Amino acid sequence: MKKFVLDTSVFVNPKARESFGGSADSAVENFIKIAKKAKGIEFYMPPSVLAELSHFSTKTEELSLYVKKRAPNIYATYLPAAVFYAFIDDVRRRVNKGLRIAEQFAMDNRPDNDVKLRALREKYREAMRAGIVDSKEDFELILLAKELDGTIVTSDEGIVALANALGCECLEGEKFEKIIKTKKRKKT
Amino acid sequence: MKKFVLDTSVFVNPKARESFGGSADSAVENFIKIAKKAKGIEFYMPPSVLAELSHFSTKTEELSLYVKKRAPNIYATYLPAAVFYAFIDDVRRRVNKGLRIAEQFAMDNRPDNDVKLRALREKYREAMRAGIVDSKEDFELILLAKELDGTIVTSDEGIVALANALGCECLEGEKFEKIIKTKKRKKT
Repeated sequence: MKKFVLDTSVFVNPKARESFGGSADSAVENFIKIAKKAKGIEFYMPPSVLAELSHFSTKTEELSLYVKKRAPNIYATYLPAAVFYAFIDDVRRRVNKGLRIAEQFAMDNRPDNDVKLRALREKYREAMRAGIVDSKEDFELILLAKELDGTIVTSDEGIVALANALGCECLEGEKFEKIIKTKKRKKT
Repeated sequence: MKKFVLDTSVFVNPKARESFGGSADSAVENFIKIAKKAKGIEFYMPPSVLAELSHFSTKTEELSLYVKKRAPNIYATYLPAAVFYAFIDDVRRRVNKGLRIAEQFAMDNRPDNDVKLRALREKYREAMRAGIVDSKEDFELILLAKELDGTIVTSDEGIVALANALGCECLEGEKFEKIIKTKKRKKT
């Protein structure tokens, strides 16, 4: 039995969900259609990730009929200290970068505050959160995949980086539809 | 043999080093005097922490004659995922707080940039780095103490918090001089 652990990006990220549909709702609906017919595949989402998706889609109740809701056992899993070590160092560098960005905007005394705030948020977000696991939901996804020996489906670079460090298989959201359709063909 | 793993704060933090001396150099010198006479005690510092101390004291070469320089084996230690999970969540909250601070300063368009930058740095640092392990040096200290089953000597709240989560003994820098002097009395 092949196990896939799904990230919200599968349904929310425009590029990842392209093959499923133009909106989060249509992506969930189309996924359900395919999932109904898929054989030999189990789909999983941690409850926290499903809750996150419910901010983008009204179809999560229906989705949860086809996706197993399961949290990882964070108390039974041990991770190499080296991975934590690299993470702490990465956070440190980002915190310094975040301060440099904040300083630039503090020194810009032009009165266009709305424009400034938008630019600040974008730059800060990019520096602090792009390419790193930045939420417990992302981390749960990786731990669950590790526990199940499953494949994470995501378009989030931070998740992919940490999953790789821990030896978890990842599949890009863009390729997911093709893969599960192939599964169906093979089995029927 | 009692093992102490020393943080830079023992010599650098004014409150912690109070019993050793008024400057980092005099704190190191006085520690060496006591360490020479101490029996049944080993002192350790990871090389990275000793390098950090060399920014504050010119006496680290001499100190390294009395302190064992040893890095933890970060590749052989495993830590509970729950600890990493809490850390990621803490970082997330701090990153959000850092952005709120940056926004405040971006909206303050008064021309006193130097005053603003000082205040920004202080607030940001407090939000991002106080009470959390924020460097690989701090983390090495904890891992080494864990490996040696030693006691961390530190005044850093972030180190104490993570050390407690991992079951490592901590001793406040302020109490260290008294403890090692007692050791001497007991043994001689």
